[in-house]
Amino acid sequence: MADLAAALRAAVPGLTVLDDADVMDSYRRDQAPGLPAGLPAAVAMPEDTAQVAAAVATAAEYGAPIVVRGAGSGLAGAANAVDGCLVLSTQRMNRILSVDPAERLATVQPGVINADLRRAVAEKGLFYPPDPGSYEMCTVGGNAATNAGGMCCVKYGVTGDYVRGLEAVLADGSVLRTGGRTVKGVAGYDLTSLLVGSEGTLAVITELSLALRPAPAPPRTIVAQFGSAAAAGAAVTAVLASGAEPSILEIIDATTLRAIEEWQPLGVEAGTAAMVIAQSDSSHEEDLRLIEAACAGASEVIVADDAAESEMLMQARRLAYPALERLGATLLDDVAVPLPKLVELIEGVEAIAKDRDMTVGLFGHAGDGNMHPTVVYPHGDADAERRAFQVFDEIVALALRLGGTVTGEHGVGLLKRSWLERELGEPARRTQRAIKAALDPHDLLNPGKAIA
Amino acid sequence: MADLAAALRAAVPGLTVLDDADVMDSYRRDQAPGLPAGLPAAVAMPEDTAQVAAAVATAAEYGAPIVVRGAGSGLAGAANAVDGCLVLSTQRMNRILSVDPAERLATVQPGVINADLRRAVAEKGLFYPPDPGSYEMCTVGGNAATNAGGMCCVKYGVTGDYVRGLEAVLADGSVLRTGGRTVKGVAGYDLTSLLVGSEGTLAVITELSLALRPAPAPPRTIVAQFGSAAAAGAAVTAVLASGAEPSILEIIDATTLRAIEEWQPLGVEAGTAAMVIAQSDSSHEEDLRLIEAACAGASEVIVADDAAESEMLMQARRLAYPALERLGATLLDDVAVPLPKLVELIEGVEAIAKDRDMTVGLFGHAGDGNMHPTVVYPHGDADAERRAFQVFDEIVALALRLGGTVTGEHGVGLLKRSWLERELGEPARRTQRAIKAALDPHDLLNPGKAIA
Ligand SMILES: Cc1cc2nc3c(=O)[nH]c(=O)nc-3n(C[C@H](O)[C@H](O)[C@H](O)COP(=O)(O)OP(=O)(O)OC[C@H]3O[C@@H](n4cnc5c(N)ncnc54)[C@H](O)[C@@H]3O)c2cc1C
Ligand SMILES: Cc1cc2nc3c(=O)[nH]c(=O)nc-3n(C[C@H](O)[C@H](O)[C@H](O)COP(=O)(O)OP(=O)(O)OC[C@H]3O[C@@H](n4cnc5c(N)ncnc54)[C@H](O)[C@@H]3O)c2cc1C
Repeated sequence: MADLAAALRAAVPGLTVLDDADVMDSYRRDQAPGLPAGLPAAVAMPEDTAQVAAAVATAAEYGAPIVVRGAGSGLAGAANAVDGCLVLSTQRMNRILSVDPAERLATVQPGVINADLRRAVAEKGLFYPPDPGSYEMCTVGGNAATNAGGMCCVKYGVTGDYVRGLEAVLADGSVLRTGGRTVKGVAGYDLTSLLVGSEGTLAVITELSLALRPAPAPPRTIVAQFGSAAAAGAAVTAVLASGAEPSILEIIDATTLRAIEEWQPLGVEAGTAAMVIAQSDSSHEEDLRLIEAACAGASEVIVADDAAESEMLMQARRLAYPALERLGATLLDDVAVPLPKLVELIEGVEAIAKDRDMTVGLFGHAGDGNMHPTVVYPHGDADAERRAFQVFDEIVALALRLGGTVTGEHGVGLLKRSWLERELGEPARRTQRAIKAALDPHDLLNPGKAIA
Repeated sequence: MADLAAALRAAVPGLTVLDDADVMDSYRRDQAPGLPAGLPAAVAMPEDTAQVAAAVATAAEYGAPIVVRGAGSGLAGAANAVDGCLVLSTQRMNRILSVDPAERLATVQPGVINADLRRAVAEKGLFYPPDPGSYEMCTVGGNAATNAGGMCCVKYGVTGDYVRGLEAVLADGSVLRTGGRTVKGVAGYDLTSLLVGSEGTLAVITELSLALRPAPAPPRTIVAQFGSAAAAGAAVTAVLASGAEPSILEIIDATTLRAIEEWQPLGVEAGTAAMVIAQSDSSHEEDLRLIEAACAGASEVIVADDAAESEMLMQARRLAYPALERLGATLLDDVAVPLPKLVELIEGVEAIAKDRDMTVGLFGHAGDGNMHPTVVYPHGDADAERRAFQVFDEIVALALRLGGTVTGEHGVGLLKRSWLERELGEPARRTQRAIKAALDPHDLLNPGKAIA
C-alpha cells in the first residue's frame, strides 16, 4: 500500500499527507497501554469536509481502512492504527465556526480542543459542560465519538446530551447531516445518537452543533472524610436525595488518598477510608448546606469559603491519578454500577486487591456510579503485569455481576471488546453488527473496534 | 389472511386474539384526521414478552405486517393499521414491575399509562417528568416509540432523556436488551436512542427502565399578557437567559386567546396579542422573580400566590386546543424552530392565515421553539379542508425555511413522510432506510411509517 499517500496527494488538492516512518509511528496509538497497534500507510490532515470526503473516497477505492484520530487521548485503544490504514487526523479542523448566545449553540469543526471551546463560549457568558479530565488536549470530535463524560455529568450529563446535530462523512464519501438546530426534533431515526459513541466506526464527524448553557455561578467545593467506604457511599446517596444538585460528586478511596498524602500532603486525617468531594455551582447557598448536611456521617467536613479555597480542595481529586502513576505502571479501568451498588463495588475492589496482593486505587464519578479502579504494578515486571490484567478482569466481572457496565465513559475500543461480548446478549451484538454492515458494508471505518 | 387469527391462537397459548369486524375497526387508526388506515387481519393483546415474541414470529411466518399500538393517541397516523396486519396492542402489558427510590429507576411494561406511572412514583416521593398533553391516556411505550415531549421539556427534556434501557422484540422474534441500569454507559452503539422515536418500525418495546427524579417543589405559575408577538417572544428569550429554570414556558397567540375568551372568559385584556405562561417548580423563590422581571414588557403580569391560583392560571393553556376545536375541524401541526426564530414563526403563521383568509390558532412550547399552529375550518366543508391542508403545508415550509424541523414531538407517522423527505438530505434518508433494512429485512414492522 506504498502508494496510498501518492494517490491521496493526487486526488485531493491541498490535502496534507504524511508518510515518513516516525510520523507514522507517532500516530499509531492512543493513551491505552499494552494494546496492539498497526502501521498506517499514510496520515492525512484535512482542513475541511470536502477534503475528508475526498480522502475517504480515495481510501475506499484502495480498500484501505480509515482510522480517524482526534487528539489520541483515548484510553481504550479506539484510535489505534490498523496495518495499511489511512489515519485521518482532525488536528487541522480546529475552527470554531460560530457561537450564538441567543440560540445557545456553537458550531465547530471536530478538531477543536475541548478547553478552547470552553474558553471561547465563556467569553460570551456561556458554558459548554462536558469536561473529561483530558479537556486541555482532547477534541470535541473525539468527545462525541466516545460520548465522553467527566466530572460534571452528575448535574449536566455527558457529551451526547449536548450534540444537537452532526455533519459526517459516510464510508462511501457522501456527506450526511443529522439532527438540527432546534432544541427538540423527532424527524426520522436519531442518527445523531447513533454516531455519538460509535468510535469512528460508522462515519467521520466533520462538524458539530453543540448546545450551550448560561454560565453557572462560581463553584464552591465541599470535602468530607469518612471512616468507611459504606459511610461515604451513604453520603453520596444522601446528597442525591437531598434535592441539591451538585455539579461534582466524587469519591476517592484510602489507597489513592495514601498515594496523594505520600506525595503532596493535604492533611488527610489518619483512619480516613474514603473522601467525598462535591461541588455546587448553584447560585443558591442552600444547595451547599444540603450537601453538607448529607455528609453528616463524616469525621470531618470542610466547606470552601471562596473560589480560591474551592480550587485548593479540588487538588485531591486532581492528584488522584497522577499520584497512583507515581507508584508504578497503571491499568486504569472504567466501570459503572447502579448507584445502590456503589459501596459493594468499592468494597469488592478492596477485597480483590487484598486477595491478589495488588495495589488498586479507586476514584471517580460516584454520583453517576462510574468509578476508575486503577491497578498499579511495578514497571517492566511481566509477571506483575499479567496479574494486573487478571485483577482488572476480576473488577470488570464484579461490575457486571452488580448489574453494571464494562465501560461508563472511556469506551470499548480494543480494550473492552471481549467484555462487551459478555455484557451484551447475542441479539444486541447481532443488531450492532447489522448496523455497522448497513453503514459501512466494506468494513473500512476503524475495523475491529467498538463493537463485538 | 383470514387464518392469521387462528394461527396466532394455535401458536401462542393464552394470547388474546380478536378478529371480529367492529374490533378491527376500532383499532384501525390513531387521533390524526384524514390519513389512510388499512384493515387489520387480527388484533392481539399479549400480556408478556414471551407472548409478544411468539406473536411476532407467527406473524412473520405469515408475512403479515405488525403494527404495534399503545393507546392510539398519536397525532401522525403512526399507529394506523395497514391491510392484513396484526395489530399488537400493549393495553394488557400494563404492569409497573418495580419503582426503586435508591436507584431512582422504574421498570415497567410498555402499556402502562403515563399518568399511572406518574402517580405510582409520586407515592414514593419521586417524579417522572415526561408529560405529553395526552398523559391520562397515552402509554409509556408509545411515548418512547414517539420520543414524546410535553410542557416540562424546557426544564426536564423529552421522553428519551429518561429511557435508560429497553427490552424489545425484533422482527425475527428474538428479544433484544439495550442500555442498562447505570446512569452512564458507552458499551457499543446506542441502540436505546435508536429505538426511541422509531415509531414501532424497528422493534416492539416490551419493557422500559425509566429514570426518575426527586419530586420538585409545588409549581407556581406566572401569566403575562403582551401587546405583540415580538414582545412575548422577547420575554421568552429573556426568561431563558435569566438564569431561572422555568419548568413550563408556553405561548398562546391572539386567535387562540379569542377562542378561549368566547368560550370561558378568563379576563384576557383587550389588545393582548400573545400570552406567556410560565411555571417554576424550583424551591428557590428567586426563580419566580427572575421570570417576572424577564416579562417586564408585558401589559399585565399575574403571579400565582399558591397552588390553587397556579392551577387556575394554567387553565388558559389547557383550554387552548379544546377552544379551537369548538370552532370547527382542526389540523394540529407540530413544528419547531431555533429559538431566535420563534417570533418570525408566530408572525409568519399570522401572515399566512391572513393571506389565505383562514383561522389558525397557535400555542405551544415556546421555550423549546416547538409550536402547534392549528388550522381551523368548518366541519364537512371539502373545499375548506383542501385549503386547510394548503395552509398547513405553508406553515411547515415556513418552519423549514427558518432552519426548523417538520416535527418537534408528534413524530412522522404517515402525516409528515413527504415532509421528512424535504427536511433530510439523500444521505440521511439512505442511511435510515439501510438501518430499517438491517433490523427488519422483510419490512414487517409498521411498514410505510416514520422514515422516507
Ligand atoms: C488524563 C486523561 C483523562 C481523561 N479523562 C476522561 C474523562 O474524564 N472522561 C472520559 O470520558 N474520558 C476521559 N479520557 C479519555 C479520552 O480523553 C476521551 O475518550 C476523549 O473523548 C478522546 O478524545 P480524542 O480527541 O483524544 O479522541 P481520540 O483518542 O483520538 O479518538 C477516540 C475515538 O474517537 C474516534 N474519533 C475521533 N475523532 C473523530 C471524528 N472526528 N469522527 C469520528 N470519530 C472520531 C477515534 O477514531 C477513536 O475511535 C481521559 C484521558 C486522559 C489521557
Ligand atoms: C390531546 C392530545 C395531546 C397530546 N399532547 C402531546 C404532547 O404534548 N407531546 C407529544 O409529544 N405528543 C402529544 N400527543 C401525541 C401522542 O399522545 C403521543 O405521540 C404519545 O406518545 C402516543 O402514545 P400512545 O400510547 O397513544 O401511542 P400510539 O398512538 O398507540 O402509537 C404511537 C407510535 O408508537 C408505536 N408504539 C406504541 N407502543 C409501542 C411499543 N410498545 N413498541 C414499539 N412501538 C410502539 C406505534 O406503532 C406508533 O408508531 C397528544 C395527543 C393528544 C390526543
